[in-house]
Amino acid sequence: MADRNLKVQLLLTGNEIMSGDTVDSNSALIARRLGEVAIGVHRKVTVGDDVALLESELAAMADDADLLIVNGGLGPTVDDLTAEVLARVTGVAIEEHPQALAHLERWCAGRRLTLNAANRKQAMLPAGATLIDNPIGSAVGFEVRVGHCRVICTPGVPGELAAMLDGIVADLARRLDRPLERSILRLQTFGLGESTAQQIISDNIALWPEEVELGFRAGAPQMEIKLTINSAAAIPTRDRCRQQLEALFGDHIIGEGDITLAARVLELLRERGATLTTAESCTGGLIASMLTRVPGSSDGFHAGFVTYANSIKHRVLGVDEQVLEHEGAVSEPVVRQMALGAMACAEADYAIAVSGIAGPDGGTPDKPVGTVWLAWGTRDELRSCCLRWPVERTLFQTMVAAAGLDMIRRALLGIESEPKYFGQRRV
Amino acid sequence: MADRNLKVQLLLTGNEIMSGDTVDSNSALIARRLGEVAIGVHRKVTVGDDVALLESELAAMADDADLLIVNGGLGPTVDDLTAEVLARVTGVAIEEHPQALAHLERWCAGRRLTLNAANRKQAMLPAGATLIDNPIGSAVGFEVRVGHCRVICTPGVPGELAAMLDGIVADLARRLDRPLERSILRLQTFGLGESTAQQIISDNIALWPEEVELGFRAGAPQMEIKLTINSAAAIPTRDRCRQQLEALFGDHIIGEGDITLAARVLELLRERGATLTTAESCTGGLIASMLTRVPGSSDGFHAGFVTYANSIKHRVLGVDEQVLEHEGAVSEPVVRQMALGAMACAEADYAIAVSGIAGPDGGTPDKPVGTVWLAWGTRDELRSCCLRWPVERTLFQTMVAAAGLDMIRRALLGIESEPKYFGQRRV
Repeated sequence: MADRNLKVQLLLTGNEIMSGDTVDSNSALIARRLGEVAIGVHRKVTVGDDVALLESELAAMADDADLLIVNGGLGPTVDDLTAEVLARVTGVAIEEHPQALAHLERWCAGRRLTLNAANRKQAMLPAGATLIDNPIGSAVGFEVRVGHCRVICTPGVPGELAAMLDGIVADLARRLDRPLERSILRLQTFGLGESTAQQIISDNIALWPEEVELGFRAGAPQMEIKLTINSAAAIPTRDRCRQQLEALFGDHIIGEGDITLAARVLELLRERGATLTTAESCTGGLIASMLTRVPGSSDGFHAGFVTYANSIKHRVLGVDEQVLEHEGAVSEPVVRQMALGAMACAEADYAIAVSGIAGPDGGTPDKPVGTVWLAWGTRDELRSCCLRWPVERTLFQTMVAAAGLDMIRRALLGIESEPKYFGQRRV
Repeated sequence: MADRNLKVQLLLTGNEIMSGDTVDSNSALIARRLGEVAIGVHRKVTVGDDVALLESELAAMADDADLLIVNGGLGPTVDDLTAEVLARVTGVAIEEHPQALAHLERWCAGRRLTLNAANRKQAMLPAGATLIDNPIGSAVGFEVRVGHCRVICTPGVPGELAAMLDGIVADLARRLDRPLERSILRLQTFGLGESTAQQIISDNIALWPEEVELGFRAGAPQMEIKLTINSAAAIPTRDRCRQQLEALFGDHIIGEGDITLAARVLELLRERGATLTTAESCTGGLIASMLTRVPGSSDGFHAGFVTYANSIKHRVLGVDEQVLEHEGAVSEPVVRQMALGAMACAEADYAIAVSGIAGPDGGTPDKPVGTVWLAWGTRDELRSCCLRWPVERTLFQTMVAAAGLDMIRRALLGIESEPKYFGQRRV
């Protein structure tokens, strides 16, 4: 539960978010960060770069809220109106703030730029404003008081906002009267939908304890399960809930926090001093790309092969031409030979091989769009299966790539049980 | 310019967007679609699933606006409050709508589901509401009048909203008094920042015609340039502007609409009956993945190699071991040999080879993080260069992969001029 005593509102400004040219992810970031210290957002309003509208909105929101966070409008152009409008609303002058100017001079000097008039405008703040440092950008943030409401102004550039929020959130947490004990445990899963997970929990856990808030955040390919508690006293209950979830579908839990399937696989490979290679047809390099996005991936991943054409499957991975001709590229013997060929070629311990029909064309009555053969494992223990995932091309590639990584994760952990998604997808 | 005579507001509802667990992309979609028929959005408000707040917000917004689009809160659960609250605001009863019920029955029948109480709730609408068909989901949309304001309620599921917007936008366009002739030309570019493009235009085009609205939408890796006109009479002027842009930085323009670098490269390969292969180190399969995301990519892309480890560069692509040892993996001779080896192995006409230091570790004083060697072209005309792109790992991979594709695009088109981004990035 969020803090009910503090009424927080967000005001987002900018023509680019109003027109839809930019999707506003800043307000979600602010809300998530505030949520971590149990501060809920009551209401949020978005307006374009329009002085009159911005002014009336700012005045009305500051009148209603205890804390107003303004995002955007701190840049160097004439469209950036936040400081000017706030000065008007509070009835103070707008003036050059020496600390802000010093920040801008340092920022320009670091980039061998001369401070121009446009940049200098960013030092003009409402009189009496308190500065908030921007560790990476030119626009400082600032705080003013409008009546009983604290107004915090932040920059619209997402990276700069993120960098500034650490300090803002820590400061807010400190100033709150009661000690904060909220704790959020986030578990990453693959192969479970939100409704399936919810159903399994309802069917198996008679009374879910009230003090542990259960939340889901569906994504592709992973789904996050969130267990939130508001007091340290609830930790044992939360841990019991976690154990129950582990018992119900623990094999689908990848790990805590922000961990990805690829990062977990690389972690397990590192622990075992083993390496993995990929032989991809329909996923076209996506599995390799998911792995190499992770810093330090070169420890466990040395080589990957994208073998779209049959001739390449034969020449590079040594897949038998007769098998290709008789069984077709999307077949069990072909993915198995792809996996073995990739392991031999890359001298790797583990392989994932994938061959399927991503669509929109290329399907047949026997093997419709969405059909895919996977092989995974080691030379001595190579497994394979056929799945059908009839979804749009890029989602198909994402889910199949993730399924391949998940099977390697299961193999590395010695998990014998089949994932739940096999139930619906297995051909 | 958007229609100034119609005051449009958006009301977004849902705890998941309020908490930041979901980033709201629906409001951007609505604004973009309205923008296509010259309807601007004046203001948007977001609130959670809270009856009292939703009610006061709805009443206030309907009082102020001519058109209010509500998004979210039409689902089957108790959190879905839109119909109930709207009935309260308009002072009418909430009743089962026969057409909505028929839609739900058809929807359930199509999925072999029995209509349950939760689903049935979705047929309960304010008396007198006009239905808006949902071609893909269970929740119908509807329209009611609150005072002088038209209120249109739409579902929160993005795909369902998108499907419904076609009809809503067409209907709005029809009902507007003046004929709509707005036309938006979108040009995709790579290698230009928004401020650089703006600067070049200001420096070279003395008077930009008022009837052609110029807009930018920055993304990674591409940037979109938008030319919007509001009358067919402005088409010749718009076309003249386009010619001027082509003259100024036409080599950076990939194409019209939503085209990606990868799709353009595949289109050019198809026209020439040529094939491309990739040899990737630091981009780790991303170039291959960008290509194979495009339907029909197998025409021009048969094979790709991810060669992270030196031993693999040698064994698979035939890179000379002594050169690897003396020059290092991130060097001109190595990327050139990678490109030639990949072409030989895949029997391809063109290759992109990439070797660099994506970070965060692995940099040296000579070759800091962000350094990358690229080679591209054919056996007979193979080019190479070294760039430095010191940004975060995944952004580095994205920009370098795109640069590789862009160099192939330029090679296929016979563009000799260097891209502008080489100016800042070339080592």
